[in-house]
Amino acid sequence: MSLHAESVPTLSRTLENMSKWLDLASKDAEERGFDVSRLLEARLAPDQFNLTRNIQSACDTGKFVATRMGGVEAAAHEDGPATVEELQARISDVRALLAQVSPESFEGNREETLTLMRGMTMSGQAYLRQFAMPNFFFHAAMSYAILRHNGVKLGKRDFLGAIEVTPAPQKE
Amino acid sequence: MSLHAESVPTLSRTLENMSKWLDLASKDAEERGFDVSRLLEARLAPDQFNLTRNIQSACDTGKFVATRMGGVEAAAHEDGPATVEELQARISDVRALLAQVSPESFEGNREETLTLMRGMTMSGQAYLRQFAMPNFFFHAAMSYAILRHNGVKLGKRDFLGAIEVTPAPQKE
Repeated sequence: MSLHAESVPTLSRTLENMSKWLDLASKDAEERGFDVSRLLEARLAPDQFNLTRNIQSACDTGKFVATRMGGVEAAAHEDGPATVEELQARISDVRALLAQVSPESFEGNREETLTLMRGMTMSGQAYLRQFAMPNFFFHAAMSYAILRHNGVKLGKRDFLGAIEVTPAPQKE
Repeated sequence: MSLHAESVPTLSRTLENMSKWLDLASKDAEERGFDVSRLLEARLAPDQFNLTRNIQSACDTGKFVATRMGGVEAAAHEDGPATVEELQARISDVRALLAQVSPESFEGNREETLTLMRGMTMSGQAYLRQFAMPNFFFHAAMSYAILRHNGVKLGKRDFLGAIEVTPAPQKE
């Protein structure tokens, strides 16, 4: 049941990480004395999505994995200006959706032809590996990069999140 | 043979994409009349790796997947200042290494305990899914973000690269 195992835990963990970045951003904005919307509207280049839209795009990528590969139904979410609370709720919705999908459904869609944006098609497996996961990481990493560039104290550990490493044994 | 299929083609394709970003960066620096080293030394925050080091880190992540999961040997590569040509050669070396590894070796390491940096341990599967792939995408995306922020004309399609989408049928 590998297609589920290779994607869903990573999507869910990274969305959880993003939720923590938003908390850090709110705290940081408060400490530095500006409204957190300054961070939500920030971007690295004038023709790039801002932070809000990158978070929304990461959420949608996770949601579409759940609906296309997991066969569950999900409400539409509007993109555009949003508060931290609204973004947190959207992240939470997608994580709840990802918690519902079954490995069997993912395997069932492995060789199915999925219809994507603008009528393009891909097999389920190709969609997940070539589009969904890289696209998800792209929007997660752009969110991180926008915050990092704007001075929010994040490091790579915040990007990777809680991973199952066993620490080295302590020396006596 | 899913651990190989879920990682190696993505690593190799994304490294190929990164090689193209470096070509675009060189061309862009020439057109705008500055030395490309200005881009290689750029970073989004003063305590972040610069572009060179992000590319080197992405390369090392790919190389370590090949050596740890694929059981092949690889030479050490030095980090630090490098030319575009040296970075291109390093990308090329890692792609050649990834082309040599077998799916069987990846499966053989699925439940093996791998020893990582600083003596920490993880199963092969956890290493690949929780550390190597997210870490690889992190450094690839930071490389992209540094170039994007410095005005190099890149878009998400350059990040995703050549994916196997079947275009929508033409309307008559």
